[in-house]
Amino acid sequence: MMNADLRRERAAATFQPELLTHVLDGGAERTRRRKEIEALVFNDPDFQHEDLNFLSRSQRYEQAVRKSALMVMKLREYGIADPEEIYWFKSFVHRGRPEPLDLHLGMFLPTLLTQATPEQQDRFFMPAWNLEIIGTYAQTEMGHGTHLRGLETTATYDPATQEFILNSPTVTSIKWWPGGLGKTSNHAIVLAQLYTQGQCKGLHAFIVPIRQLGTHEPLPGITVGDIGPKFGYDEMDNGYLKMDNFRIPRENMLMKYAQVEPDGTYVKPLSDKLTYGTMVFIRSLIVGDSARSLSRACTIAIRYSAVRHQSELKPGEPEPQILDYQTQQYKLFPLLATAYAFHFVGAYIKDTYRRVSGDINEGDLSELPELHALTAGLKAFTSWTASAGIEECRMACGGHGYSRCSGIPDIYVTFTPSCTYEGENTVMMLQTARLVEAAAKNLQAELNHRKSKEDAWNRTSVDLVRASEAHCHYVIVKLFTAKLSEISNAAVRAVMTELCLLYALYGISKNTGDFLQAGILTSAQVTQVNQHMKELLGIIRPNAVALVDSFDFHDVHLGSVLGRYDGNVYENMFEWAKKSPLNNTEVHESFHKHLKPMQAKL
Amino acid sequence: MMNADLRRERAAATFQPELLTHVLDGGAERTRRRKEIEALVFNDPDFQHEDLNFLSRSQRYEQAVRKSALMVMKLREYGIADPEEIYWFKSFVHRGRPEPLDLHLGMFLPTLLTQATPEQQDRFFMPAWNLEIIGTYAQTEMGHGTHLRGLETTATYDPATQEFILNSPTVTSIKWWPGGLGKTSNHAIVLAQLYTQGQCKGLHAFIVPIRQLGTHEPLPGITVGDIGPKFGYDEMDNGYLKMDNFRIPRENMLMKYAQVEPDGTYVKPLSDKLTYGTMVFIRSLIVGDSARSLSRACTIAIRYSAVRHQSELKPGEPEPQILDYQTQQYKLFPLLATAYAFHFVGAYIKDTYRRVSGDINEGDLSELPELHALTAGLKAFTSWTASAGIEECRMACGGHGYSRCSGIPDIYVTFTPSCTYEGENTVMMLQTARLVEAAAKNLQAELNHRKSKEDAWNRTSVDLVRASEAHCHYVIVKLFTAKLSEISNAAVRAVMTELCLLYALYGISKNTGDFLQAGILTSAQVTQVNQHMKELLGIIRPNAVALVDSFDFHDVHLGSVLGRYDGNVYENMFEWAKKSPLNNTEVHESFHKHLKPMQAKL
Repeated sequence: MMNADLRRERAAATFQPELLTHVLDGGAERTRRRKEIEALVFNDPDFQHEDLNFLSRSQRYEQAVRKSALMVMKLREYGIADPEEIYWFKSFVHRGRPEPLDLHLGMFLPTLLTQATPEQQDRFFMPAWNLEIIGTYAQTEMGHGTHLRGLETTATYDPATQEFILNSPTVTSIKWWPGGLGKTSNHAIVLAQLYTQGQCKGLHAFIVPIRQLGTHEPLPGITVGDIGPKFGYDEMDNGYLKMDNFRIPRENMLMKYAQVEPDGTYVKPLSDKLTYGTMVFIRSLIVGDSARSLSRACTIAIRYSAVRHQSELKPGEPEPQILDYQTQQYKLFPLLATAYAFHFVGAYIKDTYRRVSGDINEGDLSELPELHALTAGLKAFTSWTASAGIEECRMACGGHGYSRCSGIPDIYVTFTPSCTYEGENTVMMLQTARLVEAAAKNLQAELNHRKSKEDAWNRTSVDLVRASEAHCHYVIVKLFTAKLSEISNAAVRAVMTELCLLYALYGISKNTGDFLQAGILTSAQVTQVNQHMKELLGIIRPNAVALVDSFDFHDVHLGSVLGRYDGNVYENMFEWAKKSPLNNTEVHESFHKHLKPMQAKL
Repeated sequence: MMNADLRRERAAATFQPELLTHVLDGGAERTRRRKEIEALVFNDPDFQHEDLNFLSRSQRYEQAVRKSALMVMKLREYGIADPEEIYWFKSFVHRGRPEPLDLHLGMFLPTLLTQATPEQQDRFFMPAWNLEIIGTYAQTEMGHGTHLRGLETTATYDPATQEFILNSPTVTSIKWWPGGLGKTSNHAIVLAQLYTQGQCKGLHAFIVPIRQLGTHEPLPGITVGDIGPKFGYDEMDNGYLKMDNFRIPRENMLMKYAQVEPDGTYVKPLSDKLTYGTMVFIRSLIVGDSARSLSRACTIAIRYSAVRHQSELKPGEPEPQILDYQTQQYKLFPLLATAYAFHFVGAYIKDTYRRVSGDINEGDLSELPELHALTAGLKAFTSWTASAGIEECRMACGGHGYSRCSGIPDIYVTFTPSCTYEGENTVMMLQTARLVEAAAKNLQAELNHRKSKEDAWNRTSVDLVRASEAHCHYVIVKLFTAKLSEISNAAVRAVMTELCLLYALYGISKNTGDFLQAGILTSAQVTQVNQHMKELLGIIRPNAVALVDSFDFHDVHLGSVLGRYDGNVYENMFEWAKKSPLNNTEVHESFHKHLKPMQAKL
């Protein structure tokens, strides 16, 4: 039975959530197919398991391996091959969480396809496709992340044996972080500085076997393991890899572009921008993930705020839903608007990437640098905003937000690494800034009385980051606005127009200093912006629950007692708590071991 | 051997960190004594244990119980009785983490002292002091936190038996969250609506036995357990308590102020403000904790930023320390200044509380309402700022910040509940706002054309929260400035003056919109503020490491591989990772159970 508050909220909405779901999915037919795949997974008893919050990390890793192995087999059984449909399937199986085969499926196989020669594809692709070879992508080292030229791993060519000798020459050169490297993979694509004929030729990719096929034991010369517990990513065996004079055949260098000939002669690649492609692709995924993660958190916080009653607006009256407090609306509705905005940005980047990657395959790289810069900024902007926004949603749920049963801690720790991986955000923002003109004045002033361009760049980088952020906000408002005209249903378009306006005004209100200082807005206009924004909060209020329903997260996927579709929060919180491992016995063993002996002594 | 970068940083500092440590501790003698207690704990093999990151929650709870039991015995053995010294001892034993006896020591015993009659103290205090009785403080319910009047638990007086009958009449009335309630306590002080002679007399406190002394089994009529895993607080058995017609003797109501006579006659308390005292005390602790937690995170991020080298400022030159990047300084130095500011605010509130609580004991409650309002705002302001600041420190450490070995995830999840407990922050801010005049204009305008005062309050509460924040920032700058004149050493005073200025300017630069709109600053002045702030970043840079050294966190207390005093980060990160439970075997069992069978099938 549905909670009465949520029933009332849904009855009062001015639009049909299904129609907005179709807009998000890109059409009714795609919604239908997504839900079909969702049902395949959630109705399958093989994919059921105990609440992950009650398991140890080792047990969670094992569950994830079990489900990933099953997933690969079932995808083939069902004949699901479309990348988007595979993405859905995987996301439902793992409920939006990372899993040990992520790097194999998302980096190892695609890199083989794009950077291996036909001969290498013959040797490696089918074994990898059939998971005889399980691979990862080992780029980052303990001492270096963003700055690729600083990587220290070496691959030295030995023409006598026609082998590369791989070494981790320092402790900082140990490969660190790659997903699936710790326990799952038996191969890695290793990025290393290539040395041949006494010269360093820069970073190149090598296929390196790390564990014995069959026994899965590490090979001699290979030290490999799990890097230990993290904030989240319990299912993922992020790993380390240390190589000591480890030899691989010359044919294991990925040679579609650059090559080393048997005698050690180095043949340069056509372009050094090619490796940008993969990073652009990953960044486009992160933007979409920003939207989805923030949407999940908003769904939980807004539904719970409609169910939760607290305090009094007027003495003697019943306690209002906390969603009726202006402070609560001010916390949640701009985030809701942001989640929608990011959905449309994610869809736009995905489309653009598809178009441009078509060009790349044709050999046309002209659009790549600009796309690289734009995605860098949008990746940083959306992941920062979503990361902070998820925590705001958690805190907006009060104390219960802190319980794992809310699901939000999990969304946060799963999402927040996006601010760091595939490019630390500040660095990303500075990449975008190299386009952006707004900070130019400060830079010019610094240049006039400082000696070097690089010093000036560093001394104005705070301004540059700010300018990039403003640029990103502008781009996103533009994309959101453009989307409105594509929405055919008038009721849906009306509510999305309100959200778009809220998103734009919120961005201005958060940065009124810049607008006032630049003389773009007057004080009176700023007052109007704030006033208008507060009016919009009241206008959006009746549609808030319907707007999160439209994201259409299945309860199993949402993974939240507070955010349940039926709103029966409290009964289920009690049921959930009873299953806590600490409740396995009425009296915990520590009573007999520690408390009772102490009581006897005092 | 100390890392060369840190050695150079320390040599270049313009002041002696020890002298600043004395300022923070309140004198050289107090520093000496603190370090003496620190040595007692850290040199004691009984308090050593495995890295908590590698243990399950049940194991962590057991470790905490073990150490708490030991701690109580050792405190008596050493004759440590001063509250501040107990606080230090406890903080070193549990390394700044919560522990299962926190509520017993921090709430149960003090509440007995302040609210029990002499007869009740005779019955309960010594057994509680000797931990025969282990108690907690059960106020919050599943359905109600901040809003005390909404609590639903009932205590109905039965004059026939001279007992109170305790009930949890609804699922939302189940007591939820109290620390130590789940598995550790055998008693609870329960807050319940008192019914006598057919009338509700409001919230009162009752001493309720919940587990059998000796066996520790829950008593008939009591349902008690752990509420399940949370974002953090793994050591703490936050619990639930459901009471079904559970009877306690009349004498178990805490009757120092209000009383119920044997026939059921209710005698009113002198003042209803008395319970404020405990909340003010807890809030004063939270402000101090904001300072300490943010200081720990700053220590880690700043030391690591001095050790970490990355990218290039100028082509061909060695990679600079990331602390040399302006963006990194802009992230970390304002937080460092904030940590110092909060230390002085915490000390101020603690002093004020001591003075005022002296008055309370004398029966003078005149200062209590104002103190209640001021601490509400400062509690919210400092905990929000510190919570967000800790995460900024984590992200400023790049990828490695996400590893549990950085220690920052742990600091964050341990600290962030402060934003919620003892008063949700938005509610706290609104309490302060009832003092603050700045939002009055908007409120007046709303009042002029709306019907009710309460509606107007809700419709302007966003402005009121903003006004309270500004007020808090102003109070903190004032306290920081006042502190400067008390610092006798000129070199220390100079660097603290720079930090104080940075803190003040940063607060302005974050809110330039408000200053411009109010006409307090011109555009040109805002430009000067930002310029001056950037200059200060460069001025503070050489002292950054010395400024975090002055916080004087022992490495064991800091609990961070990245923030080690000796700076030997990378070697120790590798050693730490090797101990990851997933590395207990070279081949994880999931390979044999799931991957190998799948490979055979594909």
